[in-house]
Amino acid sequence: MYDVCVAAFSERLRALSLVLTKAEEHAVERKIDPQVFLTARLAPDMFALTRQVQIATDHAKGASSRLAGREVPRFEDSEVTFADLQARIAKTRDHLASFTPADLEGSEERDITLKIGGSDMVVKGQKYLLDMATPNFYFHVTTAYNILRHNGVPLGKGVFLGRG
Amino acid sequence: MYDVCVAAFSERLRALSLVLTKAEEHAVERKIDPQVFLTARLAPDMFALTRQVQIATDHAKGASSRLAGREVPRFEDSEVTFADLQARIAKTRDHLASFTPADLEGSEERDITLKIGGSDMVVKGQKYLLDMATPNFYFHVTTAYNILRHNGVPLGKGVFLGRG
Repeated sequence: MYDVCVAAFSERLRALSLVLTKAEEHAVERKIDPQVFLTARLAPDMFALTRQVQIATDHAKGASSRLAGREVPRFEDSEVTFADLQARIAKTRDHLASFTPADLEGSEERDITLKIGGSDMVVKGQKYLLDMATPNFYFHVTTAYNILRHNGVPLGKGVFLGRG
Repeated sequence: MYDVCVAAFSERLRALSLVLTKAEEHAVERKIDPQVFLTARLAPDMFALTRQVQIATDHAKGASSRLAGREVPRFEDSEVTFADLQARIAKTRDHLASFTPADLEGSEERDITLKIGGSDMVVKGQKYLLDMATPNFYFHVTTAYNILRHNGVPLGKGVFLGRG
């Protein structure tokens, strides 16, 4: 559970940080207002880049905390610049680094209580991680990358995977 | 390893099948040539929808087979219709269903040999699954969904997650 949640999410967030660094460099180089990227979305009723990054980090801090039986830290969702998003990713990775494998031991079977539309839903830790947190986490990390690719930022799969 | 690879990938492919079903229904309803969706891409140098689905299934059959020490089955990559893609997903899920948890037991430590750019790379099973197969798999599943959302197909996160 530690490897699949804490270690993997931290590594993916490191890669997301790299993607955002390259996007910001591209904005500077091409004299594009960074807000063009930060507020870009793939469809009118999909979230913009900034929100995609916020939600990806929410799933990382939420899953790790819930599986370890800790309170989920609240972040303000006040990010408006690339630097703000980088700080949020760093804060999330610091949070992930505060867990040890022992903290998540046995969490496969832990009852996780989620608030969904005002009511409580209870699900086992492993199901929560594999069927909910992981697909959601990857959805937002990938969509952040796709928004930037769609807007012409020169990125490749290697950067998405954290190389480069 | 079985839960993280075989069971999770099969469930995500079930959801991808649902996404494609809804896209095809939308094409019929709005009298849109299905090829408009199947050949759509988010950037000129990104793969079109059909290829995204092919690669997603490649990672699912590749990871499960390699971790179990079996030959990876070859698929033809000849899909041109929604029905073809549905058949490919079904074939991949049948392949996944051929594994038992015992087949993947101990595969964390198995040496996996990958051909990368003509040369061999050896990586431990767990690293291969978590750092390579999983992010790649989710990348292509999410990008398939994003291509359809960008093209106006009425989908929501619930469908991406395999509900309804």
